[in-house]
Amino acid sequence: MFDQGLSRQGVLPTDSGHDFREPWLVIGDREFQSRLILGIEQYVSAELVARVLDAGAADVFITTFDHTNTKPSLLLAELDNAMDLDRFIWIGTTSFAQSKDEALRTAQMLRKSFGIDIIKLDVRPNDNLPNNEQTVEAARELIGDGFAVLPFILPDPETARALEEIGCSAIRAMASPVASYRGINDESMIRKVIEAVDLPVIVEGGIGSPVHVVIAMQLGAAGVLVNTAVARASDPAKMAASMRHAVLAGHAAIGQQIAVAV
Amino acid sequence: MFDQGLSRQGVLPTDSGHDFREPWLVIGDREFQSRLILGIEQYVSAELVARVLDAGAADVFITTFDHTNTKPSLLLAELDNAMDLDRFIWIGTTSFAQSKDEALRTAQMLRKSFGIDIIKLDVRPNDNLPNNEQTVEAARELIGDGFAVLPFILPDPETARALEEIGCSAIRAMASPVASYRGINDESMIRKVIEAVDLPVIVEGGIGSPVHVVIAMQLGAAGVLVNTAVARASDPAKMAASMRHAVLAGHAAIGQQIAVAV
Repeated sequence: MFDQGLSRQGVLPTDSGHDFREPWLVIGDREFQSRLILGIEQYVSAELVARVLDAGAADVFITTFDHTNTKPSLLLAELDNAMDLDRFIWIGTTSFAQSKDEALRTAQMLRKSFGIDIIKLDVRPNDNLPNNEQTVEAARELIGDGFAVLPFILPDPETARALEEIGCSAIRAMASPVASYRGINDESMIRKVIEAVDLPVIVEGGIGSPVHVVIAMQLGAAGVLVNTAVARASDPAKMAASMRHAVLAGHAAIGQQIAVAV
Repeated sequence: MFDQGLSRQGVLPTDSGHDFREPWLVIGDREFQSRLILGIEQYVSAELVARVLDAGAADVFITTFDHTNTKPSLLLAELDNAMDLDRFIWIGTTSFAQSKDEALRTAQMLRKSFGIDIIKLDVRPNDNLPNNEQTVEAARELIGDGFAVLPFILPDPETARALEEIGCSAIRAMASPVASYRGINDESMIRKVIEAVDLPVIVEGGIGSPVHVVIAMQLGAAGVLVNTAVARASDPAKMAASMRHAVLAGHAAIGQQIAVAV
């Protein structure tokens, strides 16, 4: 855990009392600075979403269409009343998609409705796990169609390299199954994915505690996506703040030489 | 690790995007707010000490006399040139003391020289480990002599209770041997100490990474003392910032209900 040297996502300012807000990803004129990305589709209060995104210092707003209509979801109008949506980078997610085609359809709807051209691509047909092959195919079509794509995969360096080659903007590597709270099942595989590509790698899925976040960042992740652990916390805004600090703690520790025990 | 409910050190503000700067300890008119305490006796640059304390948002300045003169140490005059020492709460440490008498002598010298009346009490006669019995005796004498005392002990609820009864201000419980980088050897024992007393408990010794800090805070520690891991990091100021964020991350996660895996 202490063998670190993977700082691939840019050099930090030496004066590190601050919040390291250099961008880790730039798509067109949009600069991603916050290394904590928060899902918001599990909330029933727009006001709480506003407080969570604020406490987490999020700069990304993730929206979607839920074709299955199985979960309650907030109306965009409610969210727009509760916060200034314009200050966020809008991303569309296909998190409910169980097939490549459903993911592609969702992306098109998001573009038509909101002009969204950055897609958080999820294709999870079975057991709630990403299907790497279908994800690569969907990513290729979306990129051909002018989207910027952030695909979610089982951590596999080969798939990560394939996604980099076809032009994805970042890789989202699964730590453990979504909502499982298990943290990082296989640290070495996350590390291999990070080493395999020059793209920023987001660690996501099963991130249940700030400890998981610190470990992910120390491994060299560009950022962490957290959803259920914040949404279901006793105080989601406070938990978002915890995760934000955990991201900064882990990121600042990258490449620090940890002395040998004496 | 996720069974938390030990928030004994005060209720956090609900708006947790901020830095939780309510005091966790008050001695006379001195309010301890930063939950990260940093040792500074391992540095050879006063300017670096200033940057480390700033990046760590420290409000405590720890000074001592090293009777053994075995280590290089900065002159107070140099430190005074590099930073505004008046803004810190001054604490004297007996960290070099290998006996109760040496600790008592150091405390008296610190009071005579600097007017210090808060003592970070260490008595480590053998194997660099605190001797709980001698520590209790030294604490009793120091308190009788008008000092506020922050004693360092092997984690033992009985000793912690004894130190509370004789009037100590806080307990410092050893996570693992000083400078060992092992983190918390026995989480259950740290938890027992925290549960045994109403005093704030600082976790200290062997804290090598921000992960250790988050875990200590999640266990319910009032704060964490870090020394070698920051002093020997590649960029001590950046590592101090990491530890500061880790303290905030762990503290904000206390008492958060972590949902059961689905």
